[in-house]
Amino acid sequence: MTLKVYLSGEIHTDWRERIVEGAKGLNVAFDSPVTDHAASDDCGVAILGAEENKFWHDHKGAKLNAIRTRKGIADADIVVVRFGEDYKQWNAAFDAGYAAALGKSLIILHGPQHAHALKEVDAAALAVADDPAQVVQILRYVLTGGLPD
Amino acid sequence: MTLKVYLSGEIHTDWRERIVEGAKGLNVAFDSPVTDHAASDDCGVAILGAEENKFWHDHKGAKLNAIRTRKGIADADIVVVRFGEDYKQWNAAFDAGYAAALGKSLIILHGPQHAHALKEVDAAALAVADDPAQVVQILRYVLTGGLPD
Amino acid sequence: MTLKVYLSGEIHTDWRERIVEGAKGLNVAFDSPVTDHAASDDCGVAILGAEENKFWHDHKGAKLNAIRTRKGIADADIVVVRFGEDYKQWNAAFDAGYAAALGKSLIILHGPQHAHALKEVDAAALAVADDPAQVVQILRYVLTGGLPD
Amino acid sequence: MTLKVYLSGEIHTDWRERIVEGAKGLNVAFDSPVTDHAASDDCGVAILGAEENKFWHDHKGAKLNAIRTRKGIADADIVVVRFGEDYKQWNAAFDAGYAAALGKSLIILHGPQHAHALKEVDAAALAVADDPAQVVQILRYVLTGGLPD
Amino acid sequence: MTLKVYLSGEIHTDWRERIVEGAKGLNVAFDSPVTDHAASDDCGVAILGAEENKFWHDHKGAKLNAIRTRKGIADADIVVVRFGEDYKQWNAAFDAGYAAALGKSLIILHGPQHAHALKEVDAAALAVADDPAQVVQILRYVLTGGLPD
Amino acid sequence: MTLKVYLSGEIHTDWRERIVEGAKGLNVAFDSPVTDHAASDDCGVAILGAEENKFWHDHKGAKLNAIRTRKGIADADIVVVRFGEDYKQWNAAFDAGYAAALGKSLIILHGPQHAHALKEVDAAALAVADDPAQVVQILRYVLTGGLPD
Amino acid sequence: MTLKVYLSGEIHTDWRERIVEGAKGLNVAFDSPVTDHAASDDCGVAILGAEENKFWHDHKGAKLNAIRTRKGIADADIVVVRFGEDYKQWNAAFDAGYAAALGKSLIILHGPQHAHALKEVDAAALAVADDPAQVVQILRYVLTGGLPD
Amino acid sequence: MTLKVYLSGEIHTDWRERIVEGAKGLNVAFDSPVTDHAASDDCGVAILGAEENKFWHDHKGAKLNAIRTRKGIADADIVVVRFGEDYKQWNAAFDAGYAAALGKSLIILHGPQHAHALKEVDAAALAVADDPAQVVQILRYVLTGGLPD
Repeated sequence: MTLKVYLSGEIHTDWRERIVEGAKGLNVAFDSPVTDHAASDDCGVAILGAEENKFWHDHKGAKLNAIRTRKGIADADIVVVRFGEDYKQWNAAFDAGYAAALGKSLIILHGPQHAHALKEVDAAALAVADDPAQVVQILRYVLTGGLPD
Repeated sequence: MTLKVYLSGEIHTDWRERIVEGAKGLNVAFDSPVTDHAASDDCGVAILGAEENKFWHDHKGAKLNAIRTRKGIADADIVVVRFGEDYKQWNAAFDAGYAAALGKSLIILHGPQHAHALKEVDAAALAVADDPAQVVQILRYVLTGGLPD
Repeated sequence: MTLKVYLSGEIHTDWRERIVEGAKGLNVAFDSPVTDHAASDDCGVAILGAEENKFWHDHKGAKLNAIRTRKGIADADIVVVRFGEDYKQWNAAFDAGYAAALGKSLIILHGPQHAHALKEVDAAALAVADDPAQVVQILRYVLTGGLPD
Repeated sequence: MTLKVYLSGEIHTDWRERIVEGAKGLNVAFDSPVTDHAASDDCGVAILGAEENKFWHDHKGAKLNAIRTRKGIADADIVVVRFGEDYKQWNAAFDAGYAAALGKSLIILHGPQHAHALKEVDAAALAVADDPAQVVQILRYVLTGGLPD
Repeated sequence: MTLKVYLSGEIHTDWRERIVEGAKGLNVAFDSPVTDHAASDDCGVAILGAEENKFWHDHKGAKLNAIRTRKGIADADIVVVRFGEDYKQWNAAFDAGYAAALGKSLIILHGPQHAHALKEVDAAALAVADDPAQVVQILRYVLTGGLPD
Repeated sequence: MTLKVYLSGEIHTDWRERIVEGAKGLNVAFDSPVTDHAASDDCGVAILGAEENKFWHDHKGAKLNAIRTRKGIADADIVVVRFGEDYKQWNAAFDAGYAAALGKSLIILHGPQHAHALKEVDAAALAVADDPAQVVQILRYVLTGGLPD
Repeated sequence: MTLKVYLSGEIHTDWRERIVEGAKGLNVAFDSPVTDHAASDDCGVAILGAEENKFWHDHKGAKLNAIRTRKGIADADIVVVRFGEDYKQWNAAFDAGYAAALGKSLIILHGPQHAHALKEVDAAALAVADDPAQVVQILRYVLTGGLPD
Repeated sequence: MTLKVYLSGEIHTDWRERIVEGAKGLNVAFDSPVTDHAASDDCGVAILGAEENKFWHDHKGAKLNAIRTRKGIADADIVVVRFGEDYKQWNAAFDAGYAAALGKSLIILHGPQHAHALKEVDAAALAVADDPAQVVQILRYVLTGGLPD
């Protein structure tokens, strides 16, 4: 069994690296969005031409990013969505809803201060964790049956 | 043609009433989540028994609310999602993602200050508006071909 | 919103009647399997001819019952599955799995003594209750937002 | 043709090993749930934190196990479900129903004493056997056309 | 519960009339192909223009008939397929396969002399009968739980 | 049997009226896009605000029209697509492809001069006609089995 | 592009070998049912135990064969179905209908004497041929664009 | 992440070669229709026999081409559709509609003079470009996050 895991959400801390690093040796294939904030914001106009109106500037970029995001989620067995401390992060919640409707196994990662605001998202998940190390432990358990010592 | 419209998101202003009122006489069937904040938060424990742990208190409620939300979205032709001024509103973005994955026609309703943060959500929509009256005009146009004067 | 509810499982107590009675006045359409145990066991051979081998006797009946069960579950918004005190009730668990795979909203009804044995079934449910009156309260809440006093 | 086979159900005898051993040399990829009973029961709290309430203890574990079970069934061509002598085994029947709704080819494995109680499950199957060696023979026949001597 | 039943296959005896007549008073909506053999053969060229080549003559007709057949099967809960004494009746077997792939409940109606030749078709069915009266009894049982005296 | 028919494509002649008029008395529910050319072109900016860039002007309108088009096609049993003499009519061909992928019964309506250019579209259709009266005859035949005199 | 091709139907001539041989060097993966007539008829009882009643003898075998047939069709891009001179061949027509409902590309192979009886089956196909060499030519064209000299 | 990209539409310029060449080194698998115009027009009769009627000549060819086109689109993550200067190109728009209904990520490639006529097609796309080099940049960005200098 190979697990395909998509890592969605917060892009300002090293949680993806910690999971990928921790899962070394496990049969997991990771995918994620473009996490370079500036590139992600400007990709649309950089490739398809400038827009005077900021709305369409954003729109063109968001659609290019959707090519990658949709494929990443559609191909995944497990979608991990992390909510960080700052920003609205509506795209993270959107990805969670999108993945839930496709029947993907959801793991939501957030601190306890967000538990109430995320209750609908958590209710659709198979696991709610607050530490990336727990995601690694879940992947290890799912693949090998092994539990943390 | 009868349009089934689900009104998701912000529950602190009268935007739903304005749309329902404005659409009187049009062939539209509206649905929405339970918008009584207290009932929505406590329904799980009120019916299924108290929980000491707030996480499970919230969890039981969120799952009961999901019965209504899932049916409302699954039955809808159009899902309107409104983002208001306050709160995280991750459930609204979750609903938008869920509806998008099911191929529903999405209308997103928000003020211009949220345009950048909602760009991924807006990119999945067929219309982005900031006034409930525009939603009424869209429904009228879709059903009758009539435009505002 | 009309809720279509399929009542699966245990056929030896009056739980279905209690739910149907309690939900009077609510916009709910109920469906259920044939609950006449003898008819349900013998329908296959009564209509399609006797079998010497008990396995095929059962097989013909189970397939006729499947015509009704599959339609009932496929048409439902909510599938309620009750596990009683006696018997193996594997058909109830089978219905729960079938409904879960179709994305139906599941409500599981059982006494606390079965909680551990039913943990995988409960984990797929949006509500776990032990009293039919709670199912009525859920249906009322989902349809009207009203909570028990 | 490679057959992907998921082996669900009873975890107290060596039936999985007998099938995997017997199918050596055939083009079959096997998968199964975590069969370490203790790990399976406690994985949720071991990774995601202790729960005072046994229901939630079980719930967290059942959901983690669902990540593996759902993927195993979704990826499978054939789902074999074995019912043993003891326990309620509702999760086995749940898996059978889940697999049936997804249109998987079902093989049910059980002793004759369970035939009546399993008639609805058997009615959804393409084969009903009572010896793991028969499953091996089925896999060999499906892949090669060869029958037992 | 209303059952939608599509009556496919043999068009040279009055089996459809017998079922429809027998089911009077039951909550069943019947549908069937055009059973006027000449009209069914010639509809394509009668409406869309003559063809010199008999293959295309047949082709145009078969495609018009497919408009009705596909809708009839797609809308049905139950597809009854009758195989008569004469002709190849490949369209009947085609309809059975089409309905099976869509997950419809299949009832196959044929005399015992065809049992071996129809074994693959029968294996996909929930009931195999040889008398239209049995189909009526099945519909009555499925809807009311009542068995023949 | 009620047929739901969506009438897509050319908007400069009275072919829709001729079909609707001719089908009077038949059990058909018709739907179609907004056929007021000016309203269809400008609906986006009229409701959602002006755009300097003609591309986005068109884009907003096309998306509003998609709300109606998608629902019309998704709800239809039969999609009729007419190609007229003038214009590129890529939206008509797009609708035909969209309907084909959803498995709708397609009827293509065009003059013989377009036969070669439309061969891929025609190849996906169940009927190719050049006169709206033939569409009426098809609908009558599908519903009643009656052929033109 | 690799084409997965399932070869269904008649098992008394060497048409499968001719196609497989002719397609050597092309990027095609072939699959087919068990073509040993005796094994195919008796596999059920040989593995799962004898039946006194011939109907159940056949039934058990047909279901085991369905494991292979369903997978073969579900995995295929193209399903070729050949109708020979003799026998009812209802399983071939059933496979064609099953494949059509799944949206597979169908190629039907039969002599001209069967054209009228197969018109509904041919109407669902993308090609109708009478010589296995034509199937090879189709596969070559689809993969390479090359036509026969 | 490997992207599967289908290149549909105009066959008279070297845009496909430019994209394939430009994407060298990227993890992309390209597919496309047969682009030899004469072969594409005549494949049906060349393999399956001559037709006197040009309509059926075209029809047989269009159906053979559909085998490749459908698989190409069904397997793709991204469908690029190019509209050139000449011809009706209804097959290109048909492919775009077909791909949109399957939820594929669409990139539409055309000159600005076609923007109004293609507004419905563009409205379903995630990117609209006019230079094949932009498609290469999109593929590079989606796979690597890298933007053009």
